[in-house]
Amino acid sequence: MSSPVLIVGSVAYDNIITPFSTGKNILGGSASYGCLACSYFTVPQLVGVVGNDFDPAHLERFEKRGVDLEGLKIDPTGKSFFWTGEYSEDFRTRKTLEIQLNVFETFKPVIPDNYKKSRFVMLGNIAPELQGHVLDQMEGSPFVIANTIDLWINLKKRILLDLIKRLSLLVINGEEAAQLTGDHNIVEAGRKLMEMGPEMAIITRGEAGAILFHPEGLFVVPAYPVVDLRDPTGAGDTFAGSFIGYLASVSRTDLDSLKKALFYATATASLTVEAFSCDRLETAGREAMEKRVAELLRITQLKA
Amino acid sequence: MSSPVLIVGSVAYDNIITPFSTGKNILGGSASYGCLACSYFTVPQLVGVVGNDFDPAHLERFEKRGVDLEGLKIDPTGKSFFWTGEYSEDFRTRKTLEIQLNVFETFKPVIPDNYKKSRFVMLGNIAPELQGHVLDQMEGSPFVIANTIDLWINLKKRILLDLIKRLSLLVINGEEAAQLTGDHNIVEAGRKLMEMGPEMAIITRGEAGAILFHPEGLFVVPAYPVVDLRDPTGAGDTFAGSFIGYLASVSRTDLDSLKKALFYATATASLTVEAFSCDRLETAGREAMEKRVAELLRITQLKA
Repeated sequence: MSSPVLIVGSVAYDNIITPFSTGKNILGGSASYGCLACSYFTVPQLVGVVGNDFDPAHLERFEKRGVDLEGLKIDPTGKSFFWTGEYSEDFRTRKTLEIQLNVFETFKPVIPDNYKKSRFVMLGNIAPELQGHVLDQMEGSPFVIANTIDLWINLKKRILLDLIKRLSLLVINGEEAAQLTGDHNIVEAGRKLMEMGPEMAIITRGEAGAILFHPEGLFVVPAYPVVDLRDPTGAGDTFAGSFIGYLASVSRTDLDSLKKALFYATATASLTVEAFSCDRLETAGREAMEKRVAELLRITQLKA
Repeated sequence: MSSPVLIVGSVAYDNIITPFSTGKNILGGSASYGCLACSYFTVPQLVGVVGNDFDPAHLERFEKRGVDLEGLKIDPTGKSFFWTGEYSEDFRTRKTLEIQLNVFETFKPVIPDNYKKSRFVMLGNIAPELQGHVLDQMEGSPFVIANTIDLWINLKKRILLDLIKRLSLLVINGEEAAQLTGDHNIVEAGRKLMEMGPEMAIITRGEAGAILFHPEGLFVVPAYPVVDLRDPTGAGDTFAGSFIGYLASVSRTDLDSLKKALFYATATASLTVEAFSCDRLETAGREAMEKRVAELLRITQLKA
């Protein structure tokens, strides 16, 4: 039977500037992408905070996709988290132009009682001490996947390293893996991540796909060849949400299931980047996603 | 039964400057890498030219690997082709610091009679009119794989486009594919390459692996995760030589064989980059190469 997934992270407004166009005040945040991705597989339990400016229409979008919103706090004292980012001409790098923490500044995630026994947890990108605070509230030993970003590697490396020891799976992109380990070689970086104490690690590398580091060895899934790249924002959060969503849906975390989850995560992330915000992720539908998984298998596997 | 492979291209001396060290007057050239890679699978028939400075010890290296040297001309009137290249800190880009064409300036490949019926041909990177001149001398309809570089796309695009129409398979790297098609998207670039008239195309993309464009669709093989990158020179030529060598060894060019050839080509190229020049490619041995193919299958395939 499928298990729910507790997902903590930001729910935000973004301004996104790409070489082709600009999206203003669009729905963003690691938990938004994570929950919508996870919703293809099982019930996401969203833990986060939004401010007094948050459009209830977005809450309806989450509810329509079956997201459990009991853990989403609406803080009337301020505005929602706000981020402005700009992509380079080739989409390979991005700059943060503005961050307003707003209600996130004082946020301390409180896990509702009936989330505390959830066996699958996604710690979306928020400060590592908040990620740890979530784990402190959980009962039992859930399977925990976490993201982080360069900001926390720079500012809070020691707290982050403490958190990493508690993880089942760290998901991190190639640049951040190099930054965290000091090693630009993907195999060496993966080895060093494993030495930091998580059970497993995944390094995502854009066009070069994702690589799983597991005590039994590596597994590589190439990127889905996207024709219509519009906005890479949220690809990593989508990847993590879909990955853990798949595992929760089969209630398994063995190596074979992890490999399959990589294909689902890669396929789902390829949907996210084809439109601004969560738009394509939200509306693509299970059939489009499964079709993409099948295509990814077809273009990578010798035997069907 | 395995067929021989006619391989035309440069046999050269290289100076290679990498972030870690420098190799001086080392064996290089597209045909050198192509032949040594191909020699793992079948007999390469080398067509090229070297000058009066070429060390006979290198000829012995080729002979030891079973390379047929009947088509290698030794031109006493000048020196061998010479190239100096320098890699960036992350090995992702390289600059040509010096080219001396030397005996290559007046070289016109002459195909020995007993090479003319070869059913597999690799046109290593030389001027496209010379590549075409080789095809003019062949009898029958061989399977023809060709490489090119940015130089010919800049200087001789029209002749190159005429040549491409005659190819079974164009192998080109990601930047060159973008330059030739004007499209940075890999899927679109591949589609446009196919419209130029070859039967198939492969775009190689370093860490992102190789992607085959075939009338029946795509196939992707990720890069082998190399720990000890020393010198990427010759990776593309090794890829092409190994690819066609495998096909010639099974005397097949169906889609299943092409997919398997991608794994062999990727594995063999990963050996080349682990040392300067052809050194590791030459000495690794069949067992090391097969082990790497097996490892590549293990880290990419759900079913063995």
